Amino acid sequence: MKVRIEQGLVIMLICTSCWGQADNARPAPTNVPGAEFPKLHSDRSATFRVQADNAQKVQLLMELGQSTYDMVKGTDGFWEVTTKPVLPGFHYYLVSTDGFVSADPGSRTFFAARKEVSGIEVPAPESEFFAAKDVPHGSVRTEWYFSKATGEWRRIFVYTPPGYDQSSERYPVLYLQHGWGEDEAAWSHQGKENFILDNLIAAQKAKPMIIVNENGMTGVNFQPPPPPRPGSAPSSPPPRSIPDSFKEERYTLFDSVISTDLIPFMDGHFRTIPDREHRALAGLSMGGAQAFRIGLNHLNQFAYLGAFSPALSITDAAKDYNGALADSAKVNQQLRLLWMGVGSDDFLLGPVRGSHEILEKAGIKHMWVESSGAHVWTVWRKYLADFAPGLFQ
Amino acid sequence: MKVRIEQGLVIMLICTSCWGQADNARPAPTNVPGAEFPKLHSDRSATFRVQADNAQKVQLLMELGQSTYDMVKGTDGFWEVTTKPVLPGFHYYLVSTDGFVSADPGSRTFFAARKEVSGIEVPAPESEFFAAKDVPHGSVRTEWYFSKATGEWRRIFVYTPPGYDQSSERYPVLYLQHGWGEDEAAWSHQGKENFILDNLIAAQKAKPMIIVNENGMTGVNFQPPPPPRPGSAPSSPPPRSIPDSFKEERYTLFDSVISTDLIPFMDGHFRTIPDREHRALAGLSMGGAQAFRIGLNHLNQFAYLGAFSPALSITDAAKDYNGALADSAKVNQQLRLLWMGVGSDDFLLGPVRGSHEILEKAGIKHMWVESSGAHVWTVWRKYLADFAPGLFQ
Repeated sequence: MKVRIEQGLVIMLICTSCWGQADNARPAPTNVPGAEFPKLHSDRSATFRVQADNAQKVQLLMELGQSTYDMVKGTDGFWEVTTKPVLPGFHYYLVSTDGFVSADPGSRTFFAARKEVSGIEVPAPESEFFAAKDVPHGSVRTEWYFSKATGEWRRIFVYTPPGYDQSSERYPVLYLQHGWGEDEAAWSHQGKENFILDNLIAAQKAKPMIIVNENGMTGVNFQPPPPPRPGSAPSSPPPRSIPDSFKEERYTLFDSVISTDLIPFMDGHFRTIPDREHRALAGLSMGGAQAFRIGLNHLNQFAYLGAFSPALSITDAAKDYNGALADSAKVNQQLRLLWMGVGSDDFLLGPVRGSHEILEKAGIKHMWVESSGAHVWTVWRKYLADFAPGLFQ
Repeated sequence: MKVRIEQGLVIMLICTSCWGQADNARPAPTNVPGAEFPKLHSDRSATFRVQADNAQKVQLLMELGQSTYDMVKGTDGFWEVTTKPVLPGFHYYLVSTDGFVSADPGSRTFFAARKEVSGIEVPAPESEFFAAKDVPHGSVRTEWYFSKATGEWRRIFVYTPPGYDQSSERYPVLYLQHGWGEDEAAWSHQGKENFILDNLIAAQKAKPMIIVNENGMTGVNFQPPPPPRPGSAPSSPPPRSIPDSFKEERYTLFDSVISTDLIPFMDGHFRTIPDREHRALAGLSMGGAQAFRIGLNHLNQFAYLGAFSPALSITDAAKDYNGALADSAKVNQQLRLLWMGVGSDDFLLGPVRGSHEILEKAGIKHMWVESSGAHVWTVWRKYLADFAPGLFQ
């Protein structure tokens, strides 16, 4: 590429147009092996490229449609777009081809919004805490157990810490839940729970613990939201309150799964310390609301609760959760840790901050984190790394 | 629906058009939760339906393009097609929308052909052997270990049989490999290795064993085949011989991964019986060629070999595999089981049958299975159920 440099402005324009040749652009780590695109540039912009020979309109739907880019057709049947710089971390995305909304064949898929969607990991120095480092690694097991509450064999994911198989030690357990439309694979696949704990344990910042993930969509008969439609996202503002469908009273069946079936299975099949002082329950978004609902309903089973960007809205500390929070002295004595966090760009900021303020006024001790970030996995990975060191101390 | 029946032909036509209302059509078990389509009918035909409001042409690519169906647009922006009856078992598929070839948002994805593709499971009475039944279940673990051969932390899948955690018993190990373009998740995800073994062990037809799956695409610098293009598949006949890229001499690096790194890791971290009499190596397609190559190269490590529809072509029993098969008496004494099978509709039938005949002429004892079926997971699940009972007896 020959470039005649005449003035500063020209240099800038030329450099903008030659991204990918000059800036050590690399395939995203979430790409399928061998796929060149999506490609990350040194300024964290990303170039997406898909083949669609006969399409009229192809769009990139970042964050499942929260921001939309029109892709441009080349002469070779490939459509391409380079985004603005993307925040470090993990982003869901989809491609819309003449109205067909699907995953990008260049990317691995992740289960979200009740379907398989693409995801792009944008690494940065702050990604180190969930990287697969040269430290002892735990396992992530897929297990099947029978739930009487649902009458079915159910699949769970279980993280066992490094050395579990070589020792006869018993371990505390964190029950950790995903958000709406995801499943029991999300915390290891999108969330990197295993590498986060491997790294914390290696640095002696967290106690070795077992983590278990169930499928929190159980009994949650929500209608899926309409699929993202190109162009519609920017014109429909995100909700500022908790939709009715997220209200915690819908979680009765899943409460039984956790409290009646899963806990006895875990205590019967893993070397757990089977008491409330060594059991935590946490979750993100819908899973955070479930953690509050189920945890406060079973304070005899859990001494630690965590709610990451939870889809909850406490309105009356004396009456909500069947009055479980009414006696603050008793709750403060029972809960060794109550953790709540939300990002400043999260559409749930209002109700979560409101819930925090009500807890504070009611004298319910809790750890409150108002971080940067939106309603995304980038934030929830950080919250796990912040929450886990406070457990079982 | 009002129907005026006048003659047999009319009845048939009406019934054809009302599939889905009259025949107890059900969502395929491989659908994402809540997705109505693809839908299976009682005659095993399947209706596929995707939304693509502005598309000009939408096609269903069954078996990744080996058979193509044009989908028909309804007035609601959805495209639909009902296939001919589909063989029971598991089928990969994709959707092409104006030339954009991607997964169906209604289906779970599976890793094949180096990308995430859709899959449809068509149940039948003969599916019972890999069903999640009411028997004790083993675990499928995701483990990370460091390979000196590749200088990286690698992910493996490990099946441990029911009762592994509750006993102090030691177990034999089957090293079991996927095909080209798939990965270490394939044997549990597509292959149902865990349920197949759970059921065999419960019926006392197979010895309890550990199974481990590695990523056999290591060092296999094959170019991916061109993506299926609508209409092109029928005109390009499948290859009748083994492509050069599948030739076994390309597997040197993966040989080191298995023989130098993985075996010591497994023996060091699981309760294995760490000798050749309790170690088997098998694989499908490219993985079957790898099993022959690596197994015959390390007869000190393996006493059982299995090749399911293997991508291999033995031409000279005295010279191939560096002469490992030259002394038939010695090989017959060393190998407790050499298993080879291929389906009558498999494009590799010719070279695999030819290899079998050469082995037979050379006096190399082996179990030979020529079954029905093509180059598909439906066949490989059956082969595992046939092969595993012969191990470690």
